[in-house]
Amino acid sequence: MKVAFQGELGAYSEEAVLALFPEASVCPKISFDEVFGSVESGEVSYGVIPIENSLFGSVHANYDLLRRHNLIIVGEWYLRIQHHLLVNRGVKMEEVGQVMSHPQALGQCQDYIKAHLNAAQIVPAYDTAGAAKIVAEKKESSRAAIASKRAGEIYNLDILASGIESDHKNFTRFLALQTPDAFERIPEKILPPDEMKTSVMYAIKENVPGALFKSLAVFALRDLDLLKIESRPLIGSPGKYVFYVDLIGTILEERVKRALGHLGEIAADVKVLGSYPRATIGS
Amino acid sequence: MKVAFQGELGAYSEEAVLALFPEASVCPKISFDEVFGSVESGEVSYGVIPIENSLFGSVHANYDLLRRHNLIIVGEWYLRIQHHLLVNRGVKMEEVGQVMSHPQALGQCQDYIKAHLNAAQIVPAYDTAGAAKIVAEKKESSRAAIASKRAGEIYNLDILASGIESDHKNFTRFLALQTPDAFERIPEKILPPDEMKTSVMYAIKENVPGALFKSLAVFALRDLDLLKIESRPLIGSPGKYVFYVDLIGTILEERVKRALGHLGEIAADVKVLGSYPRATIGS
Repeated sequence: MKVAFQGELGAYSEEAVLALFPEASVCPKISFDEVFGSVESGEVSYGVIPIENSLFGSVHANYDLLRRHNLIIVGEWYLRIQHHLLVNRGVKMEEVGQVMSHPQALGQCQDYIKAHLNAAQIVPAYDTAGAAKIVAEKKESSRAAIASKRAGEIYNLDILASGIESDHKNFTRFLALQTPDAFERIPEKILPPDEMKTSVMYAIKENVPGALFKSLAVFALRDLDLLKIESRPLIGSPGKYVFYVDLIGTILEERVKRALGHLGEIAADVKVLGSYPRATIGS
Repeated sequence: MKVAFQGELGAYSEEAVLALFPEASVCPKISFDEVFGSVESGEVSYGVIPIENSLFGSVHANYDLLRRHNLIIVGEWYLRIQHHLLVNRGVKMEEVGQVMSHPQALGQCQDYIKAHLNAAQIVPAYDTAGAAKIVAEKKESSRAAIASKRAGEIYNLDILASGIESDHKNFTRFLALQTPDAFERIPEKILPPDEMKTSVMYAIKENVPGALFKSLAVFALRDLDLLKIESRPLIGSPGKYVFYVDLIGTILEERVKRALGHLGEIAADVKVLGSYPRATIGS
């Protein structure tokens, strides 16, 4: 079974793919656009994309792709972004004179670098997995990369240190996407509604007073619990907003169907992105 | 008047500082922590931080710093992130063999690079302004950087092309911060309430049924319009959420004071981050 993700082999997204689909044959893609395209064309069975990070917020660009494409969310995963110091086989800490990684990863590990690799040269790279690949190719004992555990496995590198990021509460939520045609609800696998999450996007209609509050009332009036709510201004359309809502429950429930029907009276462009089993942070 | 920001001279944050404080003497800092610290210590009069981006969402790390520190928001600015191709004086397009920038900027300009600099080597850098600095120092005609207009001015580089990013709807919202002691409300400068924005953070108390909905009702029941609402799960505390709300109005208004008092009955850790003049996207 083929699963697409954005990035190089060994990227954090690949760890998310393997957490969601342990048997997957992974297909790296250059852009998120290509991940969506490869699912739609049938080249792959699933696509996996990051949708929000605990430090950097929601990936609006991927919400936009979800709005424009006709794929559904069939699963989610919270991946802890755990950085590792990777070196060629047998290299010791004191030999390391250069640390290479994506600027964001270098920033997240700056306390560790200051404490243990103060004299090392810091070299920015296009991505974390790419840095690991370069270290493996150059085969020099002075070079180290900061990347995922998976990158260490793929490029046959030793892990000198694990969890070297300062903030251990760095999680990225990933979504698994499939075409509606391919999606099969397996009766034996249907979970109780409170173990399911439903994701919805909608826009607020102009000239509806209190539209934001009313749009949330359609859920509250039916005792549906919300797990996420986020507004985002539509650039170029002053006063117009897009909303992302995640609620506990599934579109198989009558009250969820009714809430979404009610939402259509108040909001525009209501789009159900999918109902899927809830994952918990840290699982 | 000194104003701190995170990044190198010529960073996009410096453009935001100069938009908010045209007369500022800019103070670059290595981290957001240091920006907050320099305002608190009185080293600078103001700090300017990014709080959300139209592609990448809210900067939760800066919301966390706002929660932990005792600074208030006194202004905001939406900066369009416009990328420029910078070269040494007199260099022509056909001489460019290498393009250097932060990976995110390189990604945002990949269509332009493919069309105009297809043969050029792509080199990641720690930040956009740092790339411009290197190009200026090396003085080689084959090198170009992708960075802000301001970086071009500072490092005395020519602009070969402007607005080379694929998505022109890339805006970052910046906040200006001050200590409450230093803040003076100048009577002549007080704007009508509908030209002001008030930012509030709060947490949802556990075991209050429908707390999210009730917390928004305190505003809706007083006809207060919300400009932003965002929930964020508290990692390590299942079921607990932090909320960010921006509303139209000022804490000088009686109905806003009453709404916030009411909010305290439903939510925990209510913190008013500030009332300040509203900016519009694209202004």
